[in-house]
Amino acid sequence: MSKKDLNNQLDQISTQPFPNSKKIYLTGSRPDIQVPMREISLSETQIENSAPEVNPPVAVYDPSGPYTDPKITINVRQGIPDIRSTWIKERNDTELLPRVSSKYGQDRQSDPTLDELRFPNLKQPRRAKAGQNVTQMHYARKGIITPEMEFIALRENQLIQDDSLNFQHQGEPFGATIPKIITPEFVRDEIARGRAIIPANINHPEVEPMIIGRNFLVKINANIGNSATNSSIEEEVEKMVWSIRWGGDTVMDLSTGKNIHETREWILRNSPVPIGTVPLYQALEKVNGNPAELTWELFRDTLIEQAEQGVDYFTIHAGVRLAHVPMTAKRLTGIVSRGGSIMAKWCLAHHQESFLYTNFAKICEIMKAYDVAFSLGDGLRPGSIADANDAAQFAELETLGELTKIAWQHDVQTMIEGPGHVPMHMIKENMEKQLKDCDEAPFYTLGPLITDISPGYDHISSSIGAAMIGWYGCAMLCYVTPKEHLGLPDKHDVREGIIAYKIAAHAADLAKGHSGAQYRDNAISKARFEFRWEDQFNLGLDPLRAQEFHDKTLPKESAKQAHFCSMCGPHFCAMKITQDVRDYAKQKEIESVDIAMEAGLKEKAEEFKNKGSKIYH
Amino acid sequence: MSKKDLNNQLDQISTQPFPNSKKIYLTGSRPDIQVPMREISLSETQIENSAPEVNPPVAVYDPSGPYTDPKITINVRQGIPDIRSTWIKERNDTELLPRVSSKYGQDRQSDPTLDELRFPNLKQPRRAKAGQNVTQMHYARKGIITPEMEFIALRENQLIQDDSLNFQHQGEPFGATIPKIITPEFVRDEIARGRAIIPANINHPEVEPMIIGRNFLVKINANIGNSATNSSIEEEVEKMVWSIRWGGDTVMDLSTGKNIHETREWILRNSPVPIGTVPLYQALEKVNGNPAELTWELFRDTLIEQAEQGVDYFTIHAGVRLAHVPMTAKRLTGIVSRGGSIMAKWCLAHHQESFLYTNFAKICEIMKAYDVAFSLGDGLRPGSIADANDAAQFAELETLGELTKIAWQHDVQTMIEGPGHVPMHMIKENMEKQLKDCDEAPFYTLGPLITDISPGYDHISSSIGAAMIGWYGCAMLCYVTPKEHLGLPDKHDVREGIIAYKIAAHAADLAKGHSGAQYRDNAISKARFEFRWEDQFNLGLDPLRAQEFHDKTLPKESAKQAHFCSMCGPHFCAMKITQDVRDYAKQKEIESVDIAMEAGLKEKAEEFKNKGSKIYH
Repeated sequence: MSKKDLNNQLDQISTQPFPNSKKIYLTGSRPDIQVPMREISLSETQIENSAPEVNPPVAVYDPSGPYTDPKITINVRQGIPDIRSTWIKERNDTELLPRVSSKYGQDRQSDPTLDELRFPNLKQPRRAKAGQNVTQMHYARKGIITPEMEFIALRENQLIQDDSLNFQHQGEPFGATIPKIITPEFVRDEIARGRAIIPANINHPEVEPMIIGRNFLVKINANIGNSATNSSIEEEVEKMVWSIRWGGDTVMDLSTGKNIHETREWILRNSPVPIGTVPLYQALEKVNGNPAELTWELFRDTLIEQAEQGVDYFTIHAGVRLAHVPMTAKRLTGIVSRGGSIMAKWCLAHHQESFLYTNFAKICEIMKAYDVAFSLGDGLRPGSIADANDAAQFAELETLGELTKIAWQHDVQTMIEGPGHVPMHMIKENMEKQLKDCDEAPFYTLGPLITDISPGYDHISSSIGAAMIGWYGCAMLCYVTPKEHLGLPDKHDVREGIIAYKIAAHAADLAKGHSGAQYRDNAISKARFEFRWEDQFNLGLDPLRAQEFHDKTLPKESAKQAHFCSMCGPHFCAMKITQDVRDYAKQKEIESVDIAMEAGLKEKAEEFKNKGSKIYH
Repeated sequence: MSKKDLNNQLDQISTQPFPNSKKIYLTGSRPDIQVPMREISLSETQIENSAPEVNPPVAVYDPSGPYTDPKITINVRQGIPDIRSTWIKERNDTELLPRVSSKYGQDRQSDPTLDELRFPNLKQPRRAKAGQNVTQMHYARKGIITPEMEFIALRENQLIQDDSLNFQHQGEPFGATIPKIITPEFVRDEIARGRAIIPANINHPEVEPMIIGRNFLVKINANIGNSATNSSIEEEVEKMVWSIRWGGDTVMDLSTGKNIHETREWILRNSPVPIGTVPLYQALEKVNGNPAELTWELFRDTLIEQAEQGVDYFTIHAGVRLAHVPMTAKRLTGIVSRGGSIMAKWCLAHHQESFLYTNFAKICEIMKAYDVAFSLGDGLRPGSIADANDAAQFAELETLGELTKIAWQHDVQTMIEGPGHVPMHMIKENMEKQLKDCDEAPFYTLGPLITDISPGYDHISSSIGAAMIGWYGCAMLCYVTPKEHLGLPDKHDVREGIIAYKIAAHAADLAKGHSGAQYRDNAISKARFEFRWEDQFNLGLDPLRAQEFHDKTLPKESAKQAHFCSMCGPHFCAMKITQDVRDYAKQKEIESVDIAMEAGLKEKAEEFKNKGSKIYH
């Protein structure tokens, strides 16, 4: 593909905000803390014979970045605005390097055949000064509230503008302790405790800080990535933008094909959300796909290469130990994690302990120099219901618990990856064991799928498991698309997968009683009840889909103002009848039937009936 | 529409079985008990240097009726085969009536303008002889095992042909007591106890008996129905066939428009699954949509009209009492059930107790003369998260408990409808209260949706709640389509909704530990692990979708035999690597690494590495 073609395609990235939505920013204690939210403006409630009722706008958490702010000009060759460099520089514990440290990175940057593909606006990498630790956990443990923490505190609170909708059921938070108001101090304490992480590499200053922890809103991750058989750079950038548009909180770039170094640079420079990777995939590319040839030196170079590009979290499968491998031999579906199977093969080929495990402290040294967070991979996750919660899976989880403690000794932020395929009744055990073994480090699970028999619909079966484990305490849910087990997701699949997971995450927030989570449900239900169709669409997770579906049945614009819906037709609508009932009750000041009986309302009932029992007559 | 057009459209109903699937029948104690199942034939496992391994076929529960049996010629103007008339006649407690008893039914049958629309092969209606009770519950309580019960016992057991896949996790059945093998005696006992129902009207002899109860497989219902704004007879018949094709266990005809009497006849004569209705909808049509004009006499005539057509269960909103109505006045979304709002309006207009409640014993008299089962409607179900589990909802549920006891005094089979919109942490309370208040009568819920913010994706948010409540003990799950709250579902939506609910129901079976539920998961996972792509598709809930998705990424036929998948490409596949690891472990007879260490396998590891660490070289 020529550079011109690439540019043309990148220009096509959507920058339209959703209908009736605009980007607003909350300002923190300093003017450069600008926390984005999407504000959805609502129409007035129209009730006959009453003055219209104003419905204040509803602001919702918004990971879509500058792409949905028409005031910001997007130029993908330039990258999105850098919002954190000032904060990072002010800490005075990092330095700019003259060039990238990784040998591989140097080779790629000096290869003229890659000029066409290379991101045109490369910056110098930044690294901790010698002896410094630049992780958010390190600052938190020193009692420092960083601008990132303050940003997150503002971001996590629901902006409530309509007190009449500010009521919610008390949740059942399974040991979480979610305060009514999230303060910067609370963020700091949770980070210091290791119960939450802020993935924010110092080389990714474009990132809008976000937090992953069970005392905060449940987050979701979307995977993108090319492979040997498919996909290209511009598609991957577009997928990232697309993913955050629909609500992805982080994006993992799981590319395994060619030019993944260059693809990653494009993604990072244009991503307002944390980017995660599995460095092992790239390391394997470098040895032509033969796991046995992997070495610590090569892997180390890959970590540094990616850390200096700005990757925010690394999946590291350091829990796949030599002794665990034979535990999988009797499984129905063996080892299904790519990282897990690569490491298993390496261990068997060398008959040695995993080099990731033996070099774990050295990995921590790298992580803390850039503030890359660990996502400790579950290489032995079950690939089927049959293999759920087995000895191999739990042995690895225990090892991940050990490694968490080592990471924390280095103040390296750490989360733990989890399964996979687990039937409903075995999900809770996963969460409880993870909290115990890993001392409450955040859990980050793939689903789990609660059955194996749904190829083509695995986004649904996994969102069931995801909602449940989110409720039980899982901090981030890795999405699954309808193409899981079958093929590579396209844009349609990514949207389907993300919305399924936004549902799961929000359901978990409701069930845990996250303060204000129910506000949006209340607002949409009020809109629904009042036949404010446009408001119902726009308060939903996918306004365009909702409108499209509505218009299929009742395409006319006028129908969107109609006081009925297509399920029942104009003369027979449950909500209309209820509204009549309520209006009647209100009109007559009937609070209870007993009172009505006492007041001799039987006659009034007659009168009402004679009028045709209709309010709208 | 002319009769010719109608016939043409009805001829287009799909009768194709799924790929590699055929209909098989298990024969009971008498030759006319023929229990249908879908048998999926599988390919052999191919492992290099080994003889192919035969994979026995997998038989699955199949509600799709004769439509997927190429041996049976479908003629929708004739109706499908009558399989129960012999059983019904043998009981000698019913009689054929000279003509339909309902005044309205008589009028419709004698109206020449309806000749074009009328089902051409009308039969005489059947009714219990004077003083007889013809319900399955009545027989069960007398200790009789009917052919219907035996049919169900055969149908509910998993047909296990491959013992190596016959293992499963122990479920957590929340008070259910599911035996390893379902016997006819067990079916009878559950029916007698009221813990399960067999919806099977004596005027619906085409029905293949099925059971709804929490000690059996969880069932799902699909709603179809025209409305004033849309849809037609042929579409509704097609939707019914389409619904059972994808796995609907019962179908509710919720039509509210014109010609619903005629539409219902076409559906019943062609339906192998129980049909449910809400007679109140038709009664309201008869009074031109004005609830206040409803009368017991009119309603009674409607019940008889529909009972003599063969409707298997009636939703009756007899729990919406006058005293409950004001409890909804402060709700965010009032009364959202159509039946509930109609009855609320009637109660207020007349300021009288509901005529359904006051005439409940008379309704029972009708039900038991035809064996129509109750589905006691939840007219006050919550329409939003805000209104979940409130006083109005639970007051109605308590009334439904009272009514259940009355129904059981008449030996009328009864199930209870449930919500609606409920956040995850409040679902269990619904199930527990229902079991307690209604003395374990089967629960039948609509979802519940676990958030309100997912218009366009409510099949997903409700399948999450459905899976959970199914696990907790709900016996049947009423599906929700992606069009919920927005418009009328089309065929695509029906398929999406049904598969989402098949996932929920099966997940519940797994979590409860229904004997053999996991067999299909094990079979598909084995196929997946062995790269038997076609088998993976065909063992899934939607073989066509799975194949379509796979072919989008790797369209070539050869790829379906490939030992890799598109996610990883040919040289880098987790499952392939695992298989290598396992083969290696097996080859070397390594059972644990400790043993391997003792045996000095370090050298052998070297040798393996030198060979290129590949089994397939």
